[in-house]
Amino acid sequence: MLTVDAYAAPSATEPLVKTTIERRDVGANDVLIEIAYSGICHSDIHTVRGEWGQIAYPQVVGHEIVGTVTEVGSAVTKHKVGDRVGVGCMVNSCGECENCLAGEEQYCLAGNTGTYAAVDRDGTITQGGYSTHVVVVEDFVLKVPESIPFEKAAPLLCAGITTYSPLAHWNAGPGKRVAVVGMGGLGHMAVKIAHAMGAEVTVLSQSLSKQEDGLRLGADHYYATSDEATFSELKNHFDLIINTVSASIDINAYLSLLRLDGTLVSVGAPAEPLPVGVFTLFGNRRTFAGSSIGGIRETQEMLDFCAEHDIAPETELISADYINEAYERVLSSDVRYRFVIDAATISA
Amino acid sequence: MLTVDAYAAPSATEPLVKTTIERRDVGANDVLIEIAYSGICHSDIHTVRGEWGQIAYPQVVGHEIVGTVTEVGSAVTKHKVGDRVGVGCMVNSCGECENCLAGEEQYCLAGNTGTYAAVDRDGTITQGGYSTHVVVVEDFVLKVPESIPFEKAAPLLCAGITTYSPLAHWNAGPGKRVAVVGMGGLGHMAVKIAHAMGAEVTVLSQSLSKQEDGLRLGADHYYATSDEATFSELKNHFDLIINTVSASIDINAYLSLLRLDGTLVSVGAPAEPLPVGVFTLFGNRRTFAGSSIGGIRETQEMLDFCAEHDIAPETELISADYINEAYERVLSSDVRYRFVIDAATISA
Repeated sequence: MLTVDAYAAPSATEPLVKTTIERRDVGANDVLIEIAYSGICHSDIHTVRGEWGQIAYPQVVGHEIVGTVTEVGSAVTKHKVGDRVGVGCMVNSCGECENCLAGEEQYCLAGNTGTYAAVDRDGTITQGGYSTHVVVVEDFVLKVPESIPFEKAAPLLCAGITTYSPLAHWNAGPGKRVAVVGMGGLGHMAVKIAHAMGAEVTVLSQSLSKQEDGLRLGADHYYATSDEATFSELKNHFDLIINTVSASIDINAYLSLLRLDGTLVSVGAPAEPLPVGVFTLFGNRRTFAGSSIGGIRETQEMLDFCAEHDIAPETELISADYINEAYERVLSSDVRYRFVIDAATISA
Repeated sequence: MLTVDAYAAPSATEPLVKTTIERRDVGANDVLIEIAYSGICHSDIHTVRGEWGQIAYPQVVGHEIVGTVTEVGSAVTKHKVGDRVGVGCMVNSCGECENCLAGEEQYCLAGNTGTYAAVDRDGTITQGGYSTHVVVVEDFVLKVPESIPFEKAAPLLCAGITTYSPLAHWNAGPGKRVAVVGMGGLGHMAVKIAHAMGAEVTVLSQSLSKQEDGLRLGADHYYATSDEATFSELKNHFDLIINTVSASIDINAYLSLLRLDGTLVSVGAPAEPLPVGVFTLFGNRRTFAGSSIGGIRETQEMLDFCAEHDIAPETELISADYINEAYERVLSSDVRYRFVIDAATISA
């Protein structure tokens, strides 16, 4: 066992505190990673505060991890000491179900093993990336291309793949009109990626406060959803809408913006069901879909795509002792666009 | 103007009565059809009873029409006197929008012109098929292949195309597991067509009362949805679910039956929105879609497909004076599986 430094939530209502946790010994198929940077995702906050169900405490979160391999197990073939690697939202899956065999481990029918707050194959509870080291089976470790700045790469492992996967699956590209709902951590990545794929990109944000950023990051158009004229002007307009907002929105208003055979994909999920008008789906043969992160093969594809197209998240680098303040700023949408923890400060 | 016999609703609350209505003179692009048979669709009842919005009375409904061409306009090239033809749910569209240009007139952005209770291009209200004759522009008149029994062909124009279109669009075929929810007018056609396409077909019906019919018509499996075990047994199972039920159902229970990249398509619509759990869509990257009848080109393709595969609806032939009783039987699901009015009895 390896004792390592980490920031953990002692309970659902207390701030995160510095502590130590145990990592398992490096098994035959494991990789030990010295974490360099760890992103802060809104899901981290939902989880530690018990908003997505009860969890055991103390709990370390963080599923946007990059670092350097410092040790490999005897059977490891994919990674070697010194490699720049990443870990995203999952660290294992059954490997045997039809979805795993299709390379879509995120949809593992036995349930993939989340990077934190999940029951690992050995029965322990997984602990996330707000830590100095992590041990992960090699199949769930990604290679981070050298050309992606290391201190910006971490958010690709969740915000990047969560938006890349539906954009790729529903064929965003030249001649396609893509809307991105919400201009936050996920939304700003969706804009960059959809633009790099060659699509015509429109941001639909509550206000125009981030319009300048949106256009700079690759959007062709930017509309405020607080303006009702937006919905009449853009009716029957989009081939694909990526909804990154996890609050409840008037989903039928957004569905009505889809043209023939258009799809609205939610990647953020409100706790309550969304009331969908079937007559709205009848028009233009519209579809409403969900998408959850991406498979390991596709995550590597996304990293390579971002390297090729010089895409990296917009980040604000913070010290570990700033995490609790960062959480409050995430909740008030006061971040452009992703906090990244410098893991070197965790042991400080 | 042509004065013809018909059965019309005098108001939302009175039974249909025999009357006469006017049909326009045959224009250059029009076809005059002597109606032979007219199907009864549940939509007819919703419409005349004002359940889908206020309408003008008297109103003749019926949008499953077959008959023989008795006169053609001077510019007509597609049909000639004596042809066996059909008319479905729409009799016109703008012809200019991107959806019409794509051959998907049912999704006309200006709104297609419904066969009844719609404002026609000349400003009159369209009157449907419970009548002896109808005048329709040639582009919206289909050819009914000789091998389809004429007294059974009418329901293909709505129940047939409404189920064929999503089955074709979402690639029902060999190796695909298709479920049909509801074993009524639409459902029994979906079973026949999906089976003919080569899919593995499962009926999901409230009870097993129509199981024998379902298996005879082409279903491979038949489950009662009143049995909760159905939902656990068939979880993550189907590639495509065609929901023909227009009552509100627990849509998330049905969505959870979809396997990776599966789609649930509703072709029946409840008036109230359906609460969709986004987390259910996240699993298996599921999609929820709507589909409305089919385009003219596709409707012809459906008729030719049914001729080739010897597919025709199961029907009960009735006299026009039985329409009101038939309505009550439709409402209590007491028909296997579609009433067809013998139009020769309308003038009797």
